[in-house]
Amino acid sequence: MVRKAEGEIGIGLVGSGFMGKAHALAFRAVGGIFPLARAPRLEMLADVTAAQAERAAAAFGFARSTGEWQALVEDPAVELVAIAAPNRLHAPIALAAIAAGKHVYCEKPLATTLEDARAMTRAAAAASVVTMVGFNYLRNPMIQTARAMIRDGEIGTVTGYRGIFAEGFMADPATPFTWRCRPDEAGGAMADIGSHAIAMARYLLGEVESVFGRLDTIHDARPASDGTTRLPVSVDDQMQALLRFRDRPFTASLSASWLACGRDNHLAFEVTGTHGAILFDQERFNELRVYRKGAAAGRSGFTTLRSGGAHGEYAAFCHADGHQLGFNDLKAIEVAQLLEAVAGGRQPESGFADALAVTAVMEAIRASSAGGGWVRPDDGDLILR
Amino acid sequence: MVRKAEGEIGIGLVGSGFMGKAHALAFRAVGGIFPLARAPRLEMLADVTAAQAERAAAAFGFARSTGEWQALVEDPAVELVAIAAPNRLHAPIALAAIAAGKHVYCEKPLATTLEDARAMTRAAAAASVVTMVGFNYLRNPMIQTARAMIRDGEIGTVTGYRGIFAEGFMADPATPFTWRCRPDEAGGAMADIGSHAIAMARYLLGEVESVFGRLDTIHDARPASDGTTRLPVSVDDQMQALLRFRDRPFTASLSASWLACGRDNHLAFEVTGTHGAILFDQERFNELRVYRKGAAAGRSGFTTLRSGGAHGEYAAFCHADGHQLGFNDLKAIEVAQLLEAVAGGRQPESGFADALAVTAVMEAIRASSAGGGWVRPDDGDLILR
Amino acid sequence: MVRKAEGEIGIGLVGSGFMGKAHALAFRAVGGIFPLARAPRLEMLADVTAAQAERAAAAFGFARSTGEWQALVEDPAVELVAIAAPNRLHAPIALAAIAAGKHVYCEKPLATTLEDARAMTRAAAAASVVTMVGFNYLRNPMIQTARAMIRDGEIGTVTGYRGIFAEGFMADPATPFTWRCRPDEAGGAMADIGSHAIAMARYLLGEVESVFGRLDTIHDARPASDGTTRLPVSVDDQMQALLRFRDRPFTASLSASWLACGRDNHLAFEVTGTHGAILFDQERFNELRVYRKGAAAGRSGFTTLRSGGAHGEYAAFCHADGHQLGFNDLKAIEVAQLLEAVAGGRQPESGFADALAVTAVMEAIRASSAGGGWVRPDDGDLILR
Amino acid sequence: MVRKAEGEIGIGLVGSGFMGKAHALAFRAVGGIFPLARAPRLEMLADVTAAQAERAAAAFGFARSTGEWQALVEDPAVELVAIAAPNRLHAPIALAAIAAGKHVYCEKPLATTLEDARAMTRAAAAASVVTMVGFNYLRNPMIQTARAMIRDGEIGTVTGYRGIFAEGFMADPATPFTWRCRPDEAGGAMADIGSHAIAMARYLLGEVESVFGRLDTIHDARPASDGTTRLPVSVDDQMQALLRFRDRPFTASLSASWLACGRDNHLAFEVTGTHGAILFDQERFNELRVYRKGAAAGRSGFTTLRSGGAHGEYAAFCHADGHQLGFNDLKAIEVAQLLEAVAGGRQPESGFADALAVTAVMEAIRASSAGGGWVRPDDGDLILR
Repeated sequence: MVRKAEGEIGIGLVGSGFMGKAHALAFRAVGGIFPLARAPRLEMLADVTAAQAERAAAAFGFARSTGEWQALVEDPAVELVAIAAPNRLHAPIALAAIAAGKHVYCEKPLATTLEDARAMTRAAAAASVVTMVGFNYLRNPMIQTARAMIRDGEIGTVTGYRGIFAEGFMADPATPFTWRCRPDEAGGAMADIGSHAIAMARYLLGEVESVFGRLDTIHDARPASDGTTRLPVSVDDQMQALLRFRDRPFTASLSASWLACGRDNHLAFEVTGTHGAILFDQERFNELRVYRKGAAAGRSGFTTLRSGGAHGEYAAFCHADGHQLGFNDLKAIEVAQLLEAVAGGRQPESGFADALAVTAVMEAIRASSAGGGWVRPDDGDLILR
Repeated sequence: MVRKAEGEIGIGLVGSGFMGKAHALAFRAVGGIFPLARAPRLEMLADVTAAQAERAAAAFGFARSTGEWQALVEDPAVELVAIAAPNRLHAPIALAAIAAGKHVYCEKPLATTLEDARAMTRAAAAASVVTMVGFNYLRNPMIQTARAMIRDGEIGTVTGYRGIFAEGFMADPATPFTWRCRPDEAGGAMADIGSHAIAMARYLLGEVESVFGRLDTIHDARPASDGTTRLPVSVDDQMQALLRFRDRPFTASLSASWLACGRDNHLAFEVTGTHGAILFDQERFNELRVYRKGAAAGRSGFTTLRSGGAHGEYAAFCHADGHQLGFNDLKAIEVAQLLEAVAGGRQPESGFADALAVTAVMEAIRASSAGGGWVRPDDGDLILR
Repeated sequence: MVRKAEGEIGIGLVGSGFMGKAHALAFRAVGGIFPLARAPRLEMLADVTAAQAERAAAAFGFARSTGEWQALVEDPAVELVAIAAPNRLHAPIALAAIAAGKHVYCEKPLATTLEDARAMTRAAAAASVVTMVGFNYLRNPMIQTARAMIRDGEIGTVTGYRGIFAEGFMADPATPFTWRCRPDEAGGAMADIGSHAIAMARYLLGEVESVFGRLDTIHDARPASDGTTRLPVSVDDQMQALLRFRDRPFTASLSASWLACGRDNHLAFEVTGTHGAILFDQERFNELRVYRKGAAAGRSGFTTLRSGGAHGEYAAFCHADGHQLGFNDLKAIEVAQLLEAVAGGRQPESGFADALAVTAVMEAIRASSAGGGWVRPDDGDLILR
Repeated sequence: MVRKAEGEIGIGLVGSGFMGKAHALAFRAVGGIFPLARAPRLEMLADVTAAQAERAAAAFGFARSTGEWQALVEDPAVELVAIAAPNRLHAPIALAAIAAGKHVYCEKPLATTLEDARAMTRAAAAASVVTMVGFNYLRNPMIQTARAMIRDGEIGTVTGYRGIFAEGFMADPATPFTWRCRPDEAGGAMADIGSHAIAMARYLLGEVESVFGRLDTIHDARPASDGTTRLPVSVDDQMQALLRFRDRPFTASLSASWLACGRDNHLAFEVTGTHGAILFDQERFNELRVYRKGAAAGRSGFTTLRSGGAHGEYAAFCHADGHQLGFNDLKAIEVAQLLEAVAGGRQPESGFADALAVTAVMEAIRASSAGGGWVRPDDGDLILR
């Protein structure tokens, strides 16, 4: 017998770089991994030129391609727009897609300014479209486990948090100036990677009440890519911040740095509670280190949990414990949650409003660094009621 | 513009359990990850009943389905037969597929007897079809890196090797009897998991010259699945072996156990050389620990390499280092190598002949355990010339 | 032939608890480990009662004992006074010892107030006696190695620092009130353990220019030791601080907590530089994890150094690498440095002035926490010129 | 008041190299750490020349010295003879000491031949003196904990064991010939370090019933220390062995190598049981990794225990957990057990008979390697009744 297509959803992807490929792989894979109410149909891919879009569509399996993202957004067969374009295009593409009634899946950062983020969040809410922002690290089954442990009191009452996202790709002052050094592309270590650390802290602990922060630009000039001139750098290389949460009794510490030589993907945290603790390091993201009081004398310590069928969506990928998920698998979980939200007509976690809250925290840290005192994030009354 | 299909290759998959799903996911994903000369077309899926096959075909995206593997093997649109059926069916399916001129991708173990493995290897060679056996752990970029380091002398002359594959799923004597306890399904810890440890040692160090081994059955009866009776167990729970290689000056040690409480996936080795060493543990398979002489006094030690763009096929999955591959990604690499071999008309690594060599080593260990002396593997002059 | 005593130095020890025993063991051992110009003679031990002092003197091998520390300080055979008494007695004992012209070895904290610390430092300087404060963790050969690596540019220019001292012994709110909860005993997590983290940062990176800090009391009451009443707690359970250094371009983060369930001795730091990084965790204090740029592609990563003959004073304890030092060995190194300073008539590192600088940083953090802005440590012009 | 000496025991130490210094430090320290019935009095030190002995006695605090070990053995003030002399002298010194009625504390190996080991064991038994051999690694509190866990069934019934001692100091074939390469000094990797691995296995699991082994000499010549000639090497660089125990149902694997580049002190084992497992690596000897069945789904894993007050003799060294013991502390525990045995008139663990059993296992492995079959250790009916 021949298999027939059931209800599908047409996907339009804008961008085919690092994250564009990750989106494409996730949309290809998701239907084989999860039983979906509506499977994705790879409808159209847009890129900066028609030729580049055509090549990427062929490579990733999209049916059609275009050199104009506007054409993709307006195409009637495209029901969901996935945005993996440069950061400054997130707002115009998303607003156009919302205006056309499309669901939107946007890479982080949501926008390059707090104003744009607010406008996008308001527009999406008004249009009742489903939105999601690519904080894919939150989909990790071990993170879901950590969050459940905190929520269910497995470590008692939470009394402390220390988070970081450190990478080393800008450690050397001889590393050239890139778009990541441009303020109008939401450059800087805080926006580029610190945003993940903020999203993680908020995902685990709830809304941020106030922040104290300091942004440092350590290397204030870098070689231009032409190799002959040097360009001034104004974005931060490093963020240090203290955070107070709305419903927590302690002050957390949060760091971000792209100068951390030797680190590739060190999104890490320590949560301590009255009866236990949880440690996580994304460089080994299939593990969680957990301490829980109550063992006999001399038998307690940190236990290393390895990902397996008891953790989040792991079992959909593999029937045996300890076989490990990869980066692209996290994106497949994210896409599955997005598609189920679309099929079910509800908002998933990590929609535009959540990304706006992260943006507001970053803006508050920026203000605190300039002014030297505690600042309350301002999300325009869209989140923090 | 609309994308057109170029040269494709029709895939027939037999089986849809743990490994069947892994095959399906790999065939779905591979074309988006790698630029392939001939992309796979998911043509037909066979399972024990038509209904089960239909469900699985729908879930995994195969065009057609059947309850008879013979129909799949003979279908003209099927050019490559992927076997993820019970072990005792590997030989009949593979031999039928070879007879029909199809390429064959078979899960391990190749067969349940050394005689079958020889017959399959001979038939495939005579028919000049491409064969591959699913030793997917060898595709790991970090294993490819370890092998290259050994080959290129980065640790000097190799002087020692200690390998193991330990899992714990049979540790408790109360764990019920399953097909894995049946000799006619190639049961026992050595065949089930030790085979991977043998394949790994051979992949890294070359042909095995002679072995001394000891197989122990620790729990000689287990509850039947009905819970009321106990069934005798004759297969091994644990293997301990010493190995001599054809071109190496040392005696290696090799262990396998499915009684290793707490282990999920501990395929591990230590290779030592005159100027360095390499450590690997598959429970963290995105890492390799490497020691190399030559650092200044007080500055030497084991360095933990994290998988990244410089290692094997990693870059096809992700543009950034340290983001980690998952189990299913290894299978995608394996399938890519298989498809490229088919497209190029050549044999990939880990074909039937390689799997036969592994089977011959296991048979020799079994003989040594019974007889108490060193035994030379006998592959019927198909490998060890 | 019979060995004759050469120049010795008479030791008087005040206190015989945890740290008192550590002092005693160090003074007993040091002469066998290191070739000393003047070996210690265990002259007298003082404790709160004559009986307790007598028992301790017998156990630790001191020749005489007393129930009055004043008698010890004034005894002519005592040339060096080691203070392991309750914190509030540090100042009176040390000032009396200095007045009597004795060298002083004082456990941390130097004093319970900044004023006392200043007075002690001034008195010692005026009397030209040798002083040392028990920041024994700084004597660790791996810390000496880390400091040398920073100083010599082995990781390039330092661009970041993140430090912590976390223990868990007060994590449970049911843990009783102790002297550590009393402000007049220099209680609180910052003074009790954070002081080590501050001393470490300063040892590695130099003088602190300004701080922003936040002290949190999470559990504001604890059971009295009688079990029937609850006592209010005003000291901090946790410190979060940002530090600017006089000669460094970045903002460091520093945390201290005694609520960190599962931690026993987690004095840890990460230093990043333009060409490398160093990680340390005192729960494995015989190790240092080091990253240095320059390895071939795919061959770089963090290298775990194990303590050995190339590191600091290790070789005096053991001729073979990797055999590990213990906590009491660090104290023996400290005592050796103290005795050599006395013999050589010079000041060792970690004298009173260094401890005063640490106290001034703590006082600044306290002020910042109360006021909400950056504060400059004030050591009364004794240190920060 | 002045402290008076109570019952003491006069110590005579032969040798002042690596292990001689370790003995001296332990005898100096032990009385401050432990409350002893009879404290050691450092009476006399012997070395190859009177001058060398005098220097060492002064450095280590011995009252007298001699260039003739016979004088030490016969000195009436010496009650216990500690032997840290070259291996070939162990037998004559020990036999003389026993003949003089002295207690004997001998470094491992007990002797350079099985015959000597038997003779020494018989003589000591006949003379009823206390004997101990320096298998100090067995005194580690974490090893005592592991043994207790095995004995008490905390991991269920033991079903597997894999042990190793690997160091790298002979890895390079350019490393010169030393006394460790001489058969008449009990040279070779098995005797030098493998003996510790055998002693560990026996300490944890009981008597060895039979062995299969293979000894490999990888580098069959090494430069003489004069640098101009090469000397042939006949001792083993590496041992691989399988062991059957008298009261255990499984075959264990045991390895020893001094070619293991990057290893300093890798005495390691994995014990698996029906309900748990224990991992140990002496390169982090203050830790034990333990798995125990029974946690909730997704909450089980290996727990890292850090040494603390609940483990063996730890509390005598430090009042706080996690502060870590060092190599010399293990020797102090050993000496305390020896002195208590002497004071109590009983035999401690690791007496001559235990060391003889280890020697017999090594002799059996040697015979198996030559003959190619299983061999039963023969201790002359002194141990294995």
